[in-house]
Amino acid sequence: MSNYVIGLDYGTNSCRAVLMEIGSPKELAASVFPYPSGELGILVDAEDPHVARQHPQDYVDGMATNIKNVLKDAKSNVPGFSADQVKALGFATTGSTVIPVDENNQPLAFKDEFKDNYNAMAWLWKDHTSSKEAAQITELAAEIRPEYLARCGGTYSSEWFWAKVLHLKNIDPETYNASYSFVELCDFLPAVLTGASDPTAIGRSICAAGHKAMYADSWGGLPDKEFLTELDPALADLRDRLYDKANASDQSAGSVNAEWATELGLAEGTQLAIGAFDAHMGAVGASIKDGSLIKIMGTSTCDLLITEKDQAIEGVCGTVKDSVIPGYIGIEAGQSAVGDLFLWFVNNIVPDSYGADQNEKFKNLTAKAAESKAGQYGLLSLDWNNGNRCVLVDMDLSGLLIGQTLHTKAHEVYRALIEATAFGALKIVNRLVESDVNVEEIICCGGLAQKNALMMQIYANVTNRKIRIAGTEQTCAVGAAIFAAAVAENTSVGELQEQMTVLSDKVFIPEESEVAIYSKLYALYDQLHDSFGVEGTSMSLYYVMKELHAIRKEANNA
Amino acid sequence: MSNYVIGLDYGTNSCRAVLMEIGSPKELAASVFPYPSGELGILVDAEDPHVARQHPQDYVDGMATNIKNVLKDAKSNVPGFSADQVKALGFATTGSTVIPVDENNQPLAFKDEFKDNYNAMAWLWKDHTSSKEAAQITELAAEIRPEYLARCGGTYSSEWFWAKVLHLKNIDPETYNASYSFVELCDFLPAVLTGASDPTAIGRSICAAGHKAMYADSWGGLPDKEFLTELDPALADLRDRLYDKANASDQSAGSVNAEWATELGLAEGTQLAIGAFDAHMGAVGASIKDGSLIKIMGTSTCDLLITEKDQAIEGVCGTVKDSVIPGYIGIEAGQSAVGDLFLWFVNNIVPDSYGADQNEKFKNLTAKAAESKAGQYGLLSLDWNNGNRCVLVDMDLSGLLIGQTLHTKAHEVYRALIEATAFGALKIVNRLVESDVNVEEIICCGGLAQKNALMMQIYANVTNRKIRIAGTEQTCAVGAAIFAAAVAENTSVGELQEQMTVLSDKVFIPEESEVAIYSKLYALYDQLHDSFGVEGTSMSLYYVMKELHAIRKEANNA
Repeated sequence: MSNYVIGLDYGTNSCRAVLMEIGSPKELAASVFPYPSGELGILVDAEDPHVARQHPQDYVDGMATNIKNVLKDAKSNVPGFSADQVKALGFATTGSTVIPVDENNQPLAFKDEFKDNYNAMAWLWKDHTSSKEAAQITELAAEIRPEYLARCGGTYSSEWFWAKVLHLKNIDPETYNASYSFVELCDFLPAVLTGASDPTAIGRSICAAGHKAMYADSWGGLPDKEFLTELDPALADLRDRLYDKANASDQSAGSVNAEWATELGLAEGTQLAIGAFDAHMGAVGASIKDGSLIKIMGTSTCDLLITEKDQAIEGVCGTVKDSVIPGYIGIEAGQSAVGDLFLWFVNNIVPDSYGADQNEKFKNLTAKAAESKAGQYGLLSLDWNNGNRCVLVDMDLSGLLIGQTLHTKAHEVYRALIEATAFGALKIVNRLVESDVNVEEIICCGGLAQKNALMMQIYANVTNRKIRIAGTEQTCAVGAAIFAAAVAENTSVGELQEQMTVLSDKVFIPEESEVAIYSKLYALYDQLHDSFGVEGTSMSLYYVMKELHAIRKEANNA
Repeated sequence: MSNYVIGLDYGTNSCRAVLMEIGSPKELAASVFPYPSGELGILVDAEDPHVARQHPQDYVDGMATNIKNVLKDAKSNVPGFSADQVKALGFATTGSTVIPVDENNQPLAFKDEFKDNYNAMAWLWKDHTSSKEAAQITELAAEIRPEYLARCGGTYSSEWFWAKVLHLKNIDPETYNASYSFVELCDFLPAVLTGASDPTAIGRSICAAGHKAMYADSWGGLPDKEFLTELDPALADLRDRLYDKANASDQSAGSVNAEWATELGLAEGTQLAIGAFDAHMGAVGASIKDGSLIKIMGTSTCDLLITEKDQAIEGVCGTVKDSVIPGYIGIEAGQSAVGDLFLWFVNNIVPDSYGADQNEKFKNLTAKAAESKAGQYGLLSLDWNNGNRCVLVDMDLSGLLIGQTLHTKAHEVYRALIEATAFGALKIVNRLVESDVNVEEIICCGGLAQKNALMMQIYANVTNRKIRIAGTEQTCAVGAAIFAAAVAENTSVGELQEQMTVLSDKVFIPEESEVAIYSKLYALYDQLHDSFGVEGTSMSLYYVMKELHAIRKEANNA
């Protein structure tokens, strides 16, 4: 008799579930639940574009709806299926998405007196209101705890746990004081199903703790009280109401209690895996292994790797033991704008001669750009329209396009933008390789990877590495299902990954002549990158336009 | 009884004539003749975009048609007018536009054996096939005749006389050998009407000779034979078949002979002024005086000034005595792309949400861009999409745009492009001021100046100078008419200019707060300019994006 698992994936605008048989890559049932609150699920503030909150009720409603849907679907479509064969649930979520809770682990947002207070809601990963606090944390850590900073690439972000909590205390002390503790979304969900009523006792994700809350076993868990006191004595007090130990997602977060089992139609005692971030679980669903860089490509890009060498790497978002695959160091990096860069260009700049709507424009831009070879347009772009996440960790940067003539066409700029994101990707790869991280091949997932073959071929040529594509669009939910299976069957994640993930047949192999031209263009990108992005770099850029011209001539005569 | 003159103006795609009363600014009759040959009058080569030739027959046909038209028009509409009251004709033309002629001053193109040979045609100013020869001339002059080079801003151009003649010899010796001499278009036209049959005896323009053929009285006219021999011994031989003396346009080039008088309906003996280039005569038509910079704004921009101090100025196109107003040093500078830059952007990049056609797009882009203030978009652009004519004299440069975000709109880029051309204009102004040339105000002419008030106000704010607009769109033809009047009445050009030119009532005054922000943006433009444009300049550009961001913030909070 088969055993099944459910992987739950909580994105920015919706959540979903997939049901899989343990040991097989087939997704047998799926359900999507768009968050009903706010704009596309996000509570926004017209006066402050940095505000991004969510209602925790949406998370709970989405969980119930999706689980019921996939069970119903499986009962109809999977011969012999019954719900008690579902052995465990796994949880992939956005993060740092921080929920203020009371001493009973109930979100403040569920209480009448806080139901209209945005500060009592979940603080979504992309809430950027806490930049002042993030800078304060970076500064203090640089001074007295450089080891904390080294682990998160040298700069603490406004998207992360401590910045958000401190900002809440600064702007709304009443809500802060009413918050007994704070839980990440990935920890909140399994805790709900266990019925846990003590936030200090619930399972806590090493992925969330290590990447966003400066947690490491090596220095005794969360940041020490001396450090927190310097930030704000209240944070030192809070430390006692958080957690001492965080765990990998192959560990149990408890099991479904009787009440929820009845409500959902699952067996009481169904196992719950410790949660983790969507990208990290997505990497597992995309067959991550030592030597494979996973690029999760959406509006921005998240890069994941695993390695055995435990070290800090400057300019990457974080290196955390067990955060991706237990036993390995998980490395997270990323690019601030990839899909967003193309969307900006198509929706604001591209003339309608390329098509009447966004889809048509993308199709025709891509087709036209695909007619040319590397260097033929004489253009070069930086990919900084939304700042630079890695390796500069500087949001105060902007875009740059160089080489345009009186004949430059929109599809040429579009190709230059694709290339810019590829150069940005190579910059990260090179930083990793300099730190002895093995990057043999790149596995891309997400809509862009599935749909844009031109882009994937350019990435192969720019990075001079084989590009493979994930075999599913639901890598995060599949990853969550794998961790559920690991908890249910006490099998290693690596072994389950071999059974439960597949890659697409499409493989993009570097083309020698293109690689040669791109290596010249990358040298110019590198000059612009350092000249505009690295303080104290002084150089002459006189040859950049000349070289672009020469490369163009050569490429057109080849 | 009134006396009249006709000003003839030969542009790139058409020629025109205006009839004026001597001493009055009114244009009493006008006629336009589009050149019938080639594409918009230009003989092009699909295989080589640098080729731009014209058929000399178009020039002669256009002259006859336009003169007959204005005479007819004046007879109908000017009370008491008769053709024998037309006392003189003046000639403004493009240049260097070089025509190979035989020993009888007949264009080779008129002969059967050359009628299909592009090399026997007029070599239009914008023919760029001679860049190798131009570089050779620059190199030789730098070595043995630096004084020649100093007078043309430090670099000899492929658009100029000697480069074209030498290139003809190099690529088509047969046609070169059949050419007894070469005449500039501005010298060819009056010579035709005199019936001159000896190219060495016709009137030659100091404007053409001085700006394009390295002629100066101070070194004995054309370049010496030693210099020419080094280039090619054939050029030294040719020197004897050119001219010893060139003259200003207030001098006579002879008079209309009997045959042409009959053909055109003019009095035999009607005076002919020595020709000059359109921009130089346009400056006269736009009321040039010491302290006023004339900007003739079209696809590219030509800048003209007059000054009393005779000196070489690095990076301007030329300084030539008598080339604009007799008795003054004429200074010519320019920008490679102004109108062309906007046309490129609108026709290739701007989405149709701004309008269905080019005119609508321009209208809406301008209206939207006019809603903002300096610095509010956080964008900065270089104006080098077509290279840089002044002060870098480097065609091997290209465009650059910096500061774009995920919210940048097309009208914001459009405004940045306008600002870029204004910064380029200021760069030239500053170079002149550094050389003690007086630039108190700027007078703009051409369609852009007449139509684009936003652009003119930006120019006033960027240059921190009053901008005035010429009172006519036909400044070149009016200038030619003024020189005709000078020859007919032996009156000074300055005096006639006061009587026969007017400025528009529109005056654009610098706005203090905008001037302050633009001075910050110009400092950044200057850094990009020197970093990408001046060999050996090494600097850090780290603060450019940061500063743009800070200026943007300041401008939006002001």
